[in-house]
Amino acid sequence: MKKINIAIVGIGRIGKIHLNNMLRYFPEANVLAVADLNYPIADFKKEFPNLSFSSDPAELFANKQVDAVVICTPTSSHAAMIEMAIQSGKHLFCEKPVDLSLQRTKVLVEKAEAAGIKMMLGFNRRFDPDFLTAYKNIRSGRIGDVQVVKITSRDPGLPPLEYIKNSGGLFMDMAIHDFDMARYLMGKEVKEVYAKGLVLVDPKVKEAGDIDTALTNLLFEDGSYAVIDNSRKAVYGYDQRVEVFGSKGMIQVENNLHNRNVVFDSEGIHQSLPLDFFMDRYAASYLNEMRYFVDSLVNQAPLPVGGLDGLKATLIAVAAKKSVEEGRPVLISEIS
Amino acid sequence: MKKINIAIVGIGRIGKIHLNNMLRYFPEANVLAVADLNYPIADFKKEFPNLSFSSDPAELFANKQVDAVVICTPTSSHAAMIEMAIQSGKHLFCEKPVDLSLQRTKVLVEKAEAAGIKMMLGFNRRFDPDFLTAYKNIRSGRIGDVQVVKITSRDPGLPPLEYIKNSGGLFMDMAIHDFDMARYLMGKEVKEVYAKGLVLVDPKVKEAGDIDTALTNLLFEDGSYAVIDNSRKAVYGYDQRVEVFGSKGMIQVENNLHNRNVVFDSEGIHQSLPLDFFMDRYAASYLNEMRYFVDSLVNQAPLPVGGLDGLKATLIAVAAKKSVEEGRPVLISEIS
Amino acid sequence: MKKINIAIVGIGRIGKIHLNNMLRYFPEANVLAVADLNYPIADFKKEFPNLSFSSDPAELFANKQVDAVVICTPTSSHAAMIEMAIQSGKHLFCEKPVDLSLQRTKVLVEKAEAAGIKMMLGFNRRFDPDFLTAYKNIRSGRIGDVQVVKITSRDPGLPPLEYIKNSGGLFMDMAIHDFDMARYLMGKEVKEVYAKGLVLVDPKVKEAGDIDTALTNLLFEDGSYAVIDNSRKAVYGYDQRVEVFGSKGMIQVENNLHNRNVVFDSEGIHQSLPLDFFMDRYAASYLNEMRYFVDSLVNQAPLPVGGLDGLKATLIAVAAKKSVEEGRPVLISEIS
Amino acid sequence: MKKINIAIVGIGRIGKIHLNNMLRYFPEANVLAVADLNYPIADFKKEFPNLSFSSDPAELFANKQVDAVVICTPTSSHAAMIEMAIQSGKHLFCEKPVDLSLQRTKVLVEKAEAAGIKMMLGFNRRFDPDFLTAYKNIRSGRIGDVQVVKITSRDPGLPPLEYIKNSGGLFMDMAIHDFDMARYLMGKEVKEVYAKGLVLVDPKVKEAGDIDTALTNLLFEDGSYAVIDNSRKAVYGYDQRVEVFGSKGMIQVENNLHNRNVVFDSEGIHQSLPLDFFMDRYAASYLNEMRYFVDSLVNQAPLPVGGLDGLKATLIAVAAKKSVEEGRPVLISEIS
Repeated sequence: MKKINIAIVGIGRIGKIHLNNMLRYFPEANVLAVADLNYPIADFKKEFPNLSFSSDPAELFANKQVDAVVICTPTSSHAAMIEMAIQSGKHLFCEKPVDLSLQRTKVLVEKAEAAGIKMMLGFNRRFDPDFLTAYKNIRSGRIGDVQVVKITSRDPGLPPLEYIKNSGGLFMDMAIHDFDMARYLMGKEVKEVYAKGLVLVDPKVKEAGDIDTALTNLLFEDGSYAVIDNSRKAVYGYDQRVEVFGSKGMIQVENNLHNRNVVFDSEGIHQSLPLDFFMDRYAASYLNEMRYFVDSLVNQAPLPVGGLDGLKATLIAVAAKKSVEEGRPVLISEIS
Repeated sequence: MKKINIAIVGIGRIGKIHLNNMLRYFPEANVLAVADLNYPIADFKKEFPNLSFSSDPAELFANKQVDAVVICTPTSSHAAMIEMAIQSGKHLFCEKPVDLSLQRTKVLVEKAEAAGIKMMLGFNRRFDPDFLTAYKNIRSGRIGDVQVVKITSRDPGLPPLEYIKNSGGLFMDMAIHDFDMARYLMGKEVKEVYAKGLVLVDPKVKEAGDIDTALTNLLFEDGSYAVIDNSRKAVYGYDQRVEVFGSKGMIQVENNLHNRNVVFDSEGIHQSLPLDFFMDRYAASYLNEMRYFVDSLVNQAPLPVGGLDGLKATLIAVAAKKSVEEGRPVLISEIS
Repeated sequence: MKKINIAIVGIGRIGKIHLNNMLRYFPEANVLAVADLNYPIADFKKEFPNLSFSSDPAELFANKQVDAVVICTPTSSHAAMIEMAIQSGKHLFCEKPVDLSLQRTKVLVEKAEAAGIKMMLGFNRRFDPDFLTAYKNIRSGRIGDVQVVKITSRDPGLPPLEYIKNSGGLFMDMAIHDFDMARYLMGKEVKEVYAKGLVLVDPKVKEAGDIDTALTNLLFEDGSYAVIDNSRKAVYGYDQRVEVFGSKGMIQVENNLHNRNVVFDSEGIHQSLPLDFFMDRYAASYLNEMRYFVDSLVNQAPLPVGGLDGLKATLIAVAAKKSVEEGRPVLISEIS
Repeated sequence: MKKINIAIVGIGRIGKIHLNNMLRYFPEANVLAVADLNYPIADFKKEFPNLSFSSDPAELFANKQVDAVVICTPTSSHAAMIEMAIQSGKHLFCEKPVDLSLQRTKVLVEKAEAAGIKMMLGFNRRFDPDFLTAYKNIRSGRIGDVQVVKITSRDPGLPPLEYIKNSGGLFMDMAIHDFDMARYLMGKEVKEVYAKGLVLVDPKVKEAGDIDTALTNLLFEDGSYAVIDNSRKAVYGYDQRVEVFGSKGMIQVENNLHNRNVVFDSEGIHQSLPLDFFMDRYAASYLNEMRYFVDSLVNQAPLPVGGLDGLKATLIAVAAKKSVEEGRPVLISEIS
């Protein structure tokens, strides 16, 4: 078995998911080292006694044995980490977004390209079994020409205001997944964006300079369109649905419920709520995306989603924000 | 348009359903007269000012203009009414059962047959659009050879004990619909019956000499089988489902809910209950069965369900009761 | 029983629905006469031998005994009929829209108001049992403050091009129902409209000067919004769904399928399609709306939907068209 | 962290599931050794380079360091393995059934009890998240007193005839899971069994001395009952459903489908089939049951399902077979 050496930077919630998936499911991916600026080394050693740990990410990049890096640090340090990965000639997987700045994103994508560095973006939802099935059904022609994509994407609750302030805003932080999903399912590029940004959940979000509710219209090059509605708070859980309408039919991707019990009583018929934690809802997608990344490293399989996809989703997010601010549809061509 | 003259005997809940359906939907069926021993004539005249009414059913049978009679009197008088219809040469539709006595049922079926009288039985569920669709799907070969029929048939609540005492018992009063449904969907005859009769809802039912819960196993001639579970009380409404399993697939007939609203809140996902009143649940089936009856009279179409079907369902009910009493499987051939 | 005398003008498909519902279900509504410019009198007499018929609608309006008129003529003559009804002091029910001209609509609504004429508009979907249940659930506070209404409204196929040319366009002909539904469910007024009009089904629609696909964003006064997507052709039938999202939950109104059979075979699990004909899908709504109209006439109950509602839906349709033409959001205040 | 040393005997499909689950998810369970009479040592070393392997199970039992054994050998050797585990004082987890012989089962259960050996049986379905939720709902009183349990349990296809011949028959091999499920959900003991055994799938099954279709009625001590229908072949996949009816409501446990895509086309509405491989369908249950076993070893938590449960399910299987042979209901008290 050909093996590759992996390092992981950032060992928060998402970093641990990737680390555990690597250890459990990918014997061909040898986790050589983990680094995190803030994580207590003692805690790490207790949890993962057999792994090498460093408080200085630079050590990982300096390590000649490391073939590829998985970047799970906060968004604000993504650019620096990617820069180091490119400098040290290491392939990389990075959680979305590349960077809050469109310009920096562009530069990094071009540098990675020029250096022949594989750069995969963590648009994990593409690898969710249900969305992946929808994607395959669409590509197979099952519903003919795609005319409309409708995405419902609602979080189960407001994140802390502190988080919101540093998030880059709802479009960049939350809806960016949906912008990528629309491009992915359509298989086409967005031409024009019209968005409304609202504060309907909590007025404090406004004070924090953000919105908590949004409606985004994406017009694609050929006249097909996508509508995305986002809310930071759905009391019934994490609402993640997609509906794709085409000339020969429609595909609905339904929510993933806690269980398959249906209870009938004198009041009604009851089912359990949608899974409400993104790590539960998307557990399989995190595993699958890493499978693709490892496969691309070990077997030279093509990367399923790269830096350019990150750039394009960012372009849409920037256009959406501009549309809200200016109260008019914005062309993607206006942005770059 | 060819027309036929109809008389209705018995103007209780079900008699009114048939009467209104006749008036509203079948211009070719001329309702000539209605009779009821107990219904106040003044009330009737207020509701149906244009219809002829009599307190003596015999008048209807004596009326030479009447071509056919719809019998909706209590079960105890069915036999007498059918007898009169046969004597006076009138075709007849009768609510189930023909009679609580197997012997009398047999005699009446034979007499009607000998006299060339059309005798349709009110096994209305055969004409419910959902069960009818299942029937057609099965006959078309959609699920191959039918191996198993499972029927869930639960009432929304106990009828009055007085009713139970005169009902002929759960098998004859309630499960008889399901016995007919099993024969109808299978298209085969029952060979052996094994049943359990239980009192799980209310001990008073035992005092009334009946059961409120039953499980019936029907073995068909070719080794296929049906299982029927009955309860007098489902707190969530009128539970009327069928599942048919065959060599090439399965058909489920689901309940008919009050509405198609799905409500999501912080507790769960909620739907409305199944329709809980038989007259709502089976509104379409009452209309459809009358359409078949009228069609058979006006256009000489074959009767979809006749006296013999009533006899066969009664045979199963008698066998089920015997099986409960003797704690063993009972052959249909033991009964007649 | 107090009775009122009704006349019906226009005896096409929808006129016949109302006529039959009157005859079958509302004894208190006496259908005094029917008029239609084009319908062959012989045909009418064959179908309704007991009803008075005229080829001149003016006769109905001249008839002093007539209390109220049900107007089911083509849209182009609605205004003239309403005018005559007002002149002759008759209450009226009119199929939507009042008129393709906003100005004429306004004038008629004001005249009826001034004359004390009850003017009910045929926004029948409000009376569909499922939408009505959703409405009641919302009003009861079941899902808290309503933030988003999403309406999917797709026809099962393109109407004839000739029809399209005279229809007033997709917004006025088809989406107007959805505009009314959004107002109805929200219980608030629209402030701004943004719409995209596309031709994705058939290029001939473009030649006919119309669109076949539309996306409309409605912003309400308080910042809540509605999204409506329309298509003239859904191959899987008549797609009529609503989803309402609020601070305490969500309500989905699902499609109404042909039957409740679920078939499992080696290929998958299959259900029947949504009802594909508007007269089947909305059969109950046509009956219910007439019940409200009759109730308003006989018992002085308030009209559930009046001329003003027609005017407001028309305003939205005009704004939507303008938005498509000018490529920008349009304020309702710009229109009137 | 307290640790325990585990050995696994039998490394076929199910043995590998347990082994991988141990390695991936239970750091407190140290897999000390694996043994298999037939598995090629070279293959094992390739797959699990770091684990100790033996071709002689006796070595494991002789190993003093081993605290507990997981027995995944063919049914025919279960008794011998359990015997050795008891002799060597090791706790044990054994796949069902303990043994095809009721007598031997009894003796082993008593010996383990006497020796203070923890003996857990692999009735994995109890630990399936959906069935576990149903169990908890029932125990919480959610549906009142349980009156009826209905279990549908159908395999996706006939196993090889060779397998069938050595399986102990459908009741002992397949339905035994359902007998345990009925006891588990009811929380009561079975008093009487009535069963029908049929050959409807393939006549070769009859030649092999077995049946392929069965209907079993279980009467519980208090008059409540369970109905179980089994088939060796459901063309639509692995059909694993449970329905529990009580005085205050009903719980349905639905099948687990391949994905949550719903496809609408001109033919109908389509969903994916139920998972058709038991290792996929019950993946979570295998992990969960091992969690309970490890927890019982490490933290002295009570065993959730023990040898006595295996014995009771076996008693029901023996009674069911006798009922088929003798064509009558059989009391459990007749068996022991």
